[in-house]
Amino acid sequence: MQRIPGGAIKGQRAGEPIRDPAAGRFPPTIAILVGILFGPFRSHFRTMVTRMKPTSLLPGLLLVAVGAPILRADEGMWTFHNPPVKKLKAEYNFELDQKWLDHVRLSSVRLNSGGSGSFVSPNGLVLTNHHVASDSVQKLSSQAADLIHNGFHAKSLGEEMKCPDLELNVLVAMTDVTAQVKAAVGGESDPEKAAKAKRAAISKIEGDARQASGLRGDVVTLYRGGEYWLYQYKQYTDVRLVFAPEVEVGFFGGDPDNFTYPRYNLDYALFRVYENGNPAATPNYLKWKIDGLQEGDLVFTSGHPGSTERLRTYSQVEYLRDVARPRSLHILGRLADALNAYGAQGEEQRRQASDPLFGIENSRKAYSGVLSGLRDPELMARKKKAEDDLRTAITGNPELAKKVGDAFASIERIQTENAPFDEQRAYRRVLGTLAEQAIGIVRYVEETAKPNAERLPQFRDSSLDSTRLDLFSPAPIYAGLEEAMLRAGIELAMERLGPDDAFVQAVLNGESAATAAHKLVMGTKLADPAVRKALVDGGKDAIAKSQDPMIRLALIVDPMLRELIKKNESAQAALTDAAGRIAQARFEIYGNSVYPDATFTLRLAYGTVKGYPEDTTLVPWKTTFYGLYERYHAFDGRAPFSLPKRYLEREKALKLETPLNFVHTCDITGGNSGSPTLDRDGNLIGLVFDGNIQSLPNDLIYVNDADRALSVHCASIIESLRVVYGAESIVDELLNGKLAGS
Amino acid sequence: MQRIPGGAIKGQRAGEPIRDPAAGRFPPTIAILVGILFGPFRSHFRTMVTRMKPTSLLPGLLLVAVGAPILRADEGMWTFHNPPVKKLKAEYNFELDQKWLDHVRLSSVRLNSGGSGSFVSPNGLVLTNHHVASDSVQKLSSQAADLIHNGFHAKSLGEEMKCPDLELNVLVAMTDVTAQVKAAVGGESDPEKAAKAKRAAISKIEGDARQASGLRGDVVTLYRGGEYWLYQYKQYTDVRLVFAPEVEVGFFGGDPDNFTYPRYNLDYALFRVYENGNPAATPNYLKWKIDGLQEGDLVFTSGHPGSTERLRTYSQVEYLRDVARPRSLHILGRLADALNAYGAQGEEQRRQASDPLFGIENSRKAYSGVLSGLRDPELMARKKKAEDDLRTAITGNPELAKKVGDAFASIERIQTENAPFDEQRAYRRVLGTLAEQAIGIVRYVEETAKPNAERLPQFRDSSLDSTRLDLFSPAPIYAGLEEAMLRAGIELAMERLGPDDAFVQAVLNGESAATAAHKLVMGTKLADPAVRKALVDGGKDAIAKSQDPMIRLALIVDPMLRELIKKNESAQAALTDAAGRIAQARFEIYGNSVYPDATFTLRLAYGTVKGYPEDTTLVPWKTTFYGLYERYHAFDGRAPFSLPKRYLEREKALKLETPLNFVHTCDITGGNSGSPTLDRDGNLIGLVFDGNIQSLPNDLIYVNDADRALSVHCASIIESLRVVYGAESIVDELLNGKLAGS
Repeated sequence: MQRIPGGAIKGQRAGEPIRDPAAGRFPPTIAILVGILFGPFRSHFRTMVTRMKPTSLLPGLLLVAVGAPILRADEGMWTFHNPPVKKLKAEYNFELDQKWLDHVRLSSVRLNSGGSGSFVSPNGLVLTNHHVASDSVQKLSSQAADLIHNGFHAKSLGEEMKCPDLELNVLVAMTDVTAQVKAAVGGESDPEKAAKAKRAAISKIEGDARQASGLRGDVVTLYRGGEYWLYQYKQYTDVRLVFAPEVEVGFFGGDPDNFTYPRYNLDYALFRVYENGNPAATPNYLKWKIDGLQEGDLVFTSGHPGSTERLRTYSQVEYLRDVARPRSLHILGRLADALNAYGAQGEEQRRQASDPLFGIENSRKAYSGVLSGLRDPELMARKKKAEDDLRTAITGNPELAKKVGDAFASIERIQTENAPFDEQRAYRRVLGTLAEQAIGIVRYVEETAKPNAERLPQFRDSSLDSTRLDLFSPAPIYAGLEEAMLRAGIELAMERLGPDDAFVQAVLNGESAATAAHKLVMGTKLADPAVRKALVDGGKDAIAKSQDPMIRLALIVDPMLRELIKKNESAQAALTDAAGRIAQARFEIYGNSVYPDATFTLRLAYGTVKGYPEDTTLVPWKTTFYGLYERYHAFDGRAPFSLPKRYLEREKALKLETPLNFVHTCDITGGNSGSPTLDRDGNLIGLVFDGNIQSLPNDLIYVNDADRALSVHCASIIESLRVVYGAESIVDELLNGKLAGS
Repeated sequence: MQRIPGGAIKGQRAGEPIRDPAAGRFPPTIAILVGILFGPFRSHFRTMVTRMKPTSLLPGLLLVAVGAPILRADEGMWTFHNPPVKKLKAEYNFELDQKWLDHVRLSSVRLNSGGSGSFVSPNGLVLTNHHVASDSVQKLSSQAADLIHNGFHAKSLGEEMKCPDLELNVLVAMTDVTAQVKAAVGGESDPEKAAKAKRAAISKIEGDARQASGLRGDVVTLYRGGEYWLYQYKQYTDVRLVFAPEVEVGFFGGDPDNFTYPRYNLDYALFRVYENGNPAATPNYLKWKIDGLQEGDLVFTSGHPGSTERLRTYSQVEYLRDVARPRSLHILGRLADALNAYGAQGEEQRRQASDPLFGIENSRKAYSGVLSGLRDPELMARKKKAEDDLRTAITGNPELAKKVGDAFASIERIQTENAPFDEQRAYRRVLGTLAEQAIGIVRYVEETAKPNAERLPQFRDSSLDSTRLDLFSPAPIYAGLEEAMLRAGIELAMERLGPDDAFVQAVLNGESAATAAHKLVMGTKLADPAVRKALVDGGKDAIAKSQDPMIRLALIVDPMLRELIKKNESAQAALTDAAGRIAQARFEIYGNSVYPDATFTLRLAYGTVKGYPEDTTLVPWKTTFYGLYERYHAFDGRAPFSLPKRYLEREKALKLETPLNFVHTCDITGGNSGSPTLDRDGNLIGLVFDGNIQSLPNDLIYVNDADRALSVHCASIIESLRVVYGAESIVDELLNGKLAGS
């Protein structure tokens, strides 16, 4: 599940759904750049929500929900405080109870690297995807020990490797704070003032909660302002790598097979959370069930869908189809070219480039998939109809109609006016970890000098720990890769914004793009985390005195970027106001009989295990190890269909009929990667790792046809651990909860 | 390769490319009905050719070919007298020589049941597809011995089973008779008279040739009248079944996987031709090469593509897209419903229905595939462009332009005028073997009383042997199945033509459709071949006296059908005239630098072994036995993905990595089923059995993208014969040419 550009989810901080990614992200790896680069597109709507103009709409005043529920079967990413009890009863005759919900919620884990996971032993063992873990695995790798390529297997607790900057969160409490947030905003009619007041209220709620409980607390905006909830998390920052298979099997089929099914991926990895240097006790964990799954079975997914935009207006979807997505594809294509050229220089360069390239190629296919969905007149017609129905319902209610006003027309107008700045925001980018770190350092110093409520979101107290973890990450930075990315970004900017653009001139500093990039990367010392820490700790003075070229550049371009952020905030606030009016009307009409758009917070989805027809034939509900070897041999063992030697040596010992992957109709999206797939009894039966290409338009319009979620089947995890890796002690812990040696 | 409705090829008589299938087909099995039913759609253009107005265009008067060759790489179904020597040299640096061509031609076989094959031992052993052989296998089956389901393996010559009505032809001589045919027509300007003169000339050439050589001789119309060639065949009528695998593996994946790739089909079967009761000596046969094939290799296909219509005008393709194909799909859907309902009555009914149902389902997918191709604006735009280029070339040459006249406009007008009769021809059908045999008998007696040249094509002397073989076939006829088909046809006619239609009233005879069908089938004695023979031999008197209800019905409806045939002939003659003018202009412009449309005569195609991208991923050039077991397990062994028990028992002994199927770019179509796939040295490396869905529009517009021909890899044939069936003596004959016990 990398349907969102590699980093759009990876780059999304846990607990910060309310943020414009343009407003100062500085991730530790280039992979995340993709997320940054495209954050604005992805989080357009999410951002709107956060700045939504509150209204006087209080729960007690809600109109009775009218109109037929517009949900399809299996649709919905439901919060754990508003689970689909009635739908499950009606569609599956399944009784969802609180005990089940609590157990599943407390067994579910969110990774700050951008994915989901679950506790799978009482001793802090966490199961997630290889591709979710790969960010950490890459950081634990070196030229000498390529854990991505060779895999990793800690044969004892002592061998488990601490991840440099991985944080895991468990949602332990959920409190409705809608009344408090709305009261703080009161009747404020100026959108910007209202947004500021709301931000202050949220900041206070989060701060108070942290002080009272010691827990990380995030206020989550649901239903685009229909509800606000305080989500409190237990945080785990000592996370160690226990097991990762070779990328050849973890990502078998590579980019060609991404978003593809049938599929044959052992896309799993295991971490362990520690507290005080010991494996953490995790009494809520999922029990494994490795057999008995059948087509037609009801299954669940508990995870963290990153974002959906199902409430975008029709004109916004058109803008995506005609402007934003084609532009994203243009940029991604150029970045891929740059990384491929770099990777072609040698084996080590190829290794360095492979992770960011994966994110980029993945994003290209994803955007293309969405785009082809949006170009399907039938799906667009359905979107149009849903909007028309809503507008009819609004028009039929004069009081609502008055509140909504010219919202639909406003959105179109703002969109048009803001388009040129969107273009600037897309191309005014200094690419690469070093450049992003430089901007992060400059902003950190400037922002933390302000009162908490006035800071950019990442620099608010509630996020500061995570931000520092990122800023001071010891993960390796590769100069050659940095130079290639930086140069590609400059060239793109030159091409699209023209050589006279102020940003372009600042970055070029009188040189060619190649020379400018080379001088910046060679001249900076920011690759050393200690240097970054010294600058942050040294504050304004240290920054002002620094002769580091990246810092000098950051000081020049940051104001330009901030201006764009401000312009965007302004447009977003107006859009948010309009979208908010629409969303609230929708909430008044449908209430919480519907689910809120995804916000990278914990959601429950449900569906059926089933195959589907595709092209000329039928696609089965599951695959087996036979298919893994079929694909290996059919491509004559050529990458990305190669297999590690041990898979060839151990083949005869494997039960080839063991289910490997399977598909189901759970409503998921990017961020759900690593989500446990559960049976009726809450047992672990699989691990979500992707969606098929048919599911891509789901983020905008729920398809409900041949769209499927893909899971790794638990049986294949056990079979590979046992037969291929001889990891008996891990298997024993997974199946029996026993910690080896304990 | 069943892309043409099961029977459009199956039902096509060897050596009768020049015929309107509506004009009196009476095949021995219902499977063939599909071909009959849709013959008019398929052979529209073929028919035009045959009645094309000859012009004064003689070889010596040909204009020099002008304009760039419009062929794409690998395009073309080339005759053996005009092979693509230059193209092969240019595209593959391959030197095609006469020895190679003669050897391959004389090793190639055409089956009158509608497919291709090849000699694979010096002792008359013939390799073809299971689905080509299945017509005979079905006829050799009984309720007690279901050879379709259980397969068949003759362990000695004595066990080889003689097929009731299978005939094999080998093309032994090719003579250009263009001058003779054109001279016979002379300057005749009336299309109908010209057609008659041409038919007489052709009939005479065929008759003279037979008399002189004892060989079957067919005059083949190429380039829609640009050339006429006398093809002479050695005929084998004693053909015995040697080996057929179970349909579960011969047609693994069934209808869902039809036209699908990747694919896992052991779609092969073996016959042996006999002469004078002994295995025939076949010194020209193909040597097997079971290893070494690689992606990128040049390969050839030598077989009998049934028909292509690449010269249809744009307006004709539009008519297909908007009228003819949707109608075909409507009828096929109803027939499938009827057969499924019949098959649901019991195991034996299911067995009886399965073969015709296969043909129908196959045709539905095929028509849908073509239709989706035709609905692709890009492909249609290319078709338009080709036509525009041709029209520009014509306009640029006043002499040509004069000859072409209003041809394009005429075609559109005739098409429109003839549409209502097309509709009648489509729905005025008495379905079922019995009804078709009755009409066949009535026509046989009437036609054979006429001079040879004036008969309907099937009743001309050159075809009479084959026609009698069909008419007197001892193949079983199933009353229940007959009734179901007959009833379905009557109901369709009632629905579309209305209850007052004369044909409908004749068939109903005052009863309901169900009762009428029941009475007809229960009352007739035609299921007995001896009764049919007695009627034919009894001639006019026997027919006139017969009280058999099917014969009585045939006497009433045949005139109506003949009237439609006549109307159609008239329209076709006019269309042919127009299309002929266009085709000849094309031939004048391009000459034989292009290949003629397919005519179910021997053609050579060439191409490359290669995979392709599809949807989200890459499709490999080959599959292996791993994939067979993958698909079996992925579908939990459910039909049509079930496997015979012995495949489960012998799995461990199989080399699973043995190549099973592979794809290449050879330009093929229906009728090529069973064609040998050859390497540069003319060795047998595979066996064509299908095309992927992307290749379906090829019949109208050559695609050359992801369209592929599918072959069974020779290695999988040997591996299955040896390991699964223990057929060592067959393997020995295939690899070493040795006949067991000799």
